[in-house]
Amino acid sequence: MNHFKIYQKYMSETEISTIGEFGLIDRLTKDIELKNSSSLRGVGDDCAVMRYPDNDVLVSTDLLVEGVHFDLTYVPLKHLGYKSAVVNFSDIYAMNGTPRQIVVSLGISKRFTVEHIEELYSGLRLACEVYGVDLVGGDTTSSHSGLVISITCIGDASADKIVYRNGAKDTDLICVSGDLGAAYMGLQVLEREKIASAGQRDFTPDFAGKEYLVERQLKPEARKDIIAELDKAGIVPTSMMDVSDGLSSELLHICRQSKVGCRVYEDRIPIDYQTAVMAEELNMNLVTAAMNGGEDYELLFTVPLHYHDKVSQLPGVKVIGHITKESLGCAMITRDGGEMTIVAQGWNHMKPEESES
Amino acid sequence: MNHFKIYQKYMSETEISTIGEFGLIDRLTKDIELKNSSSLRGVGDDCAVMRYPDNDVLVSTDLLVEGVHFDLTYVPLKHLGYKSAVVNFSDIYAMNGTPRQIVVSLGISKRFTVEHIEELYSGLRLACEVYGVDLVGGDTTSSHSGLVISITCIGDASADKIVYRNGAKDTDLICVSGDLGAAYMGLQVLEREKIASAGQRDFTPDFAGKEYLVERQLKPEARKDIIAELDKAGIVPTSMMDVSDGLSSELLHICRQSKVGCRVYEDRIPIDYQTAVMAEELNMNLVTAAMNGGEDYELLFTVPLHYHDKVSQLPGVKVIGHITKESLGCAMITRDGGEMTIVAQGWNHMKPEESES
Repeated sequence: MNHFKIYQKYMSETEISTIGEFGLIDRLTKDIELKNSSSLRGVGDDCAVMRYPDNDVLVSTDLLVEGVHFDLTYVPLKHLGYKSAVVNFSDIYAMNGTPRQIVVSLGISKRFTVEHIEELYSGLRLACEVYGVDLVGGDTTSSHSGLVISITCIGDASADKIVYRNGAKDTDLICVSGDLGAAYMGLQVLEREKIASAGQRDFTPDFAGKEYLVERQLKPEARKDIIAELDKAGIVPTSMMDVSDGLSSELLHICRQSKVGCRVYEDRIPIDYQTAVMAEELNMNLVTAAMNGGEDYELLFTVPLHYHDKVSQLPGVKVIGHITKESLGCAMITRDGGEMTIVAQGWNHMKPEESES
Repeated sequence: MNHFKIYQKYMSETEISTIGEFGLIDRLTKDIELKNSSSLRGVGDDCAVMRYPDNDVLVSTDLLVEGVHFDLTYVPLKHLGYKSAVVNFSDIYAMNGTPRQIVVSLGISKRFTVEHIEELYSGLRLACEVYGVDLVGGDTTSSHSGLVISITCIGDASADKIVYRNGAKDTDLICVSGDLGAAYMGLQVLEREKIASAGQRDFTPDFAGKEYLVERQLKPEARKDIIAELDKAGIVPTSMMDVSDGLSSELLHICRQSKVGCRVYEDRIPIDYQTAVMAEELNMNLVTAAMNGGEDYELLFTVPLHYHDKVSQLPGVKVIGHITKESLGCAMITRDGGEMTIVAQGWNHMKPEESES
C-alpha cells in the first residue's frame, strides 16, 4: 500500500488473448486443492458439486463493478481479490454460518493482462486460505469497460443455529462488533490522495496516522472470530446482519423485518481514534459517518436481555442499545439525552448523482 | 420479435433513483413464491437458505455483459432474462441434475428505468416458472456502462446419477440432442437486420423463413426433456456437457478430460433445414457453422455401446460417432470418407479482435 500504481501493460506481460479463456482459467486454477469435505468437485465441469447431508445450505452473491465499487487508481488488485471474497464470507457469517465454497465470475477488459488477473486471483486465494473456503468454479469472459467481479459464496449452518434478520424481540440488546466508520474514512483518505496524485504514474501517498483507516477500506476482514465467540458462549442471536451499507440502514432492516423499534445510544457507538481525527480534519459529523459510512463488515446482532453479562464480556463486542416495540420507531439517543430518528443514508449505489459513461 | 426497439426512457417510466436499490428489489421480488421443498428462505436476508439432505448440490454460474454477450438493439429484455436463466439451467441438466434455485445479480446503467428491469425480470421469472426453479436472491447495483447480468444456479442430483465430463470410455457412443448451428445462424440474421435497420427508431426486420433461427438465438431452451427421457430409459451417460461454445470445443473438453479420442461423422451432425439455407445464403460452410457455432444448449453425451438400440430410439437424440483410444485423437469423418482433425474454434469471448471502449 505504499504506492499508487497505474495498471498498465508491460512488454514482459502476457496478453490474455494469447492464451484464451480456457488457458487463463487453467492457469488461474491449476493447483487449487479442495479443503472442505463438502466440496466434492471444483473447477473443470459444467457445475461444482457439493454435499450437505446434515446442515442447511446458505448462498450469498455480490456484484462488484469497476468505477462503482472500486477505483483501481488506489486499490491494488490483490487487495481487491481479497476484499471481494471476504465481503461474501461476511454475509455467510451474518447468518451464523460458515463459508465453504465460492464461485468467481470475472468480466475483463482488454487493458488487463494475465499477470493482472493472477494478482487479483492471489488475493482471492489468500482470502480462501485464511477463511478455509474452497474456490470451486466460475466464469471468465471479456468486458468492454473495465473489470466486473461477481462472487457467489456457499456456506452451511445447522438448521437450529441460522440467524435471520427478522427475529429481534422487544427488550433484546443490540450489539455490534469492532468499530464503525473507519472504512468510510479510509475511502476519504484514498480519494484525497488520489486528487493529490493528479494522475502521476508513480506517486507515494501520505497515509501517516491513517494506516488503520486505509487498511479497513482496502483489506476488510469478516468477523469469523465473533461467530466463534458467540458459539463458545452458547449464544444464538435473535437477529443478525453484517454492516455493509452502514449501521443506520442495517438497523432499519432488522427493525422493519422484525416488526420492532430500537433505541441506540450515541455514546455507545464504537469509533476508532483515527476515525475521529479524520472526521475532524474533514469537518464531518463523526457519528453520522459511523452510522452511515458503510463497508465496515462488522456484525450487528440482537440477543435476549438475560445475556447482558455474557455478551458484554465478549471481546470486541459492544452493547449499543435495545429493541423496543414497533410503535416507538427507530431512534438514536444523543449525548444530550435527545432523540434523533434513524434514517437510512447508507451507501446507495443507485443514487441519482452517479453519472454514466 | 416483430420490432427492433431502441431502449429509451419514456416520460411515463420510473427512474430507478426515485425508488432506490431496496425499492427496486422490493418491486421485483415482492410476490415471489418458493416452489421447491429445498428452498427454505428466499430474497430478503444476507443469504438464501436451502436444504439438501439427500442429494448432492450442483452450482453453476454465468456472467453476461452487454456488448459482449448480447446486443439490446435486437434482444428484447424479456428474452434476455429468459435466456440468462435458461443457459444456467442447461449447465445443471448437463450434470444430469435438476435446477432448483437461482440468485441474480444485476449491474444497471442509468439509461435503464424500473420498467426496463421489470421486463428483464419478467423473462427471468417466466423461465423459473417453466423449469420449476425458485429465484431466491441476488444483488442489484449500478454500472457505468450498460447491463451486466450474473446468475448462479443451484441444483441437485443423487450422487450416483451425476455425470461428469471425464467418464467417456473407448467404444462409447457419442450422442447429441436436437440440432446444431441454428442459434449461430440466428445471430447472423439478427446482425444482418441490425445493419439494415441502420439505427432507425422503429424498424420491422425481415425474418421470413428464418423464424426458427431467430428463436434459437433469442429464446433457447434447456433440454430438461432429454434428461427425463434418459432417466425413463434407465440410461446414465458416461459423460455429458451442454453445447454452449460449439460441438468441436465440447468434444475436445470431453476427450481431454476423459483421456480418450473420438470419431464423429459429418453426415450424422443434426442440422435444421433453415440453418442449411442460411449457410448457403451467407456462403458459409454448413458443417463448420454447426460444429463451431455455439449457443445451441443441446446436450452432448456418451453412453456405453450396448445402449445403441435404446438411445437410438430416444426422440430428439442422434448418435453422431464414437469414442476411441486417446492415441487416435479427435477427428470428423467427412462425407467422402476422409478424416479432419477437430479443432476448437468455438465462441471465444477473449478473442483478440474484440475492442474495448
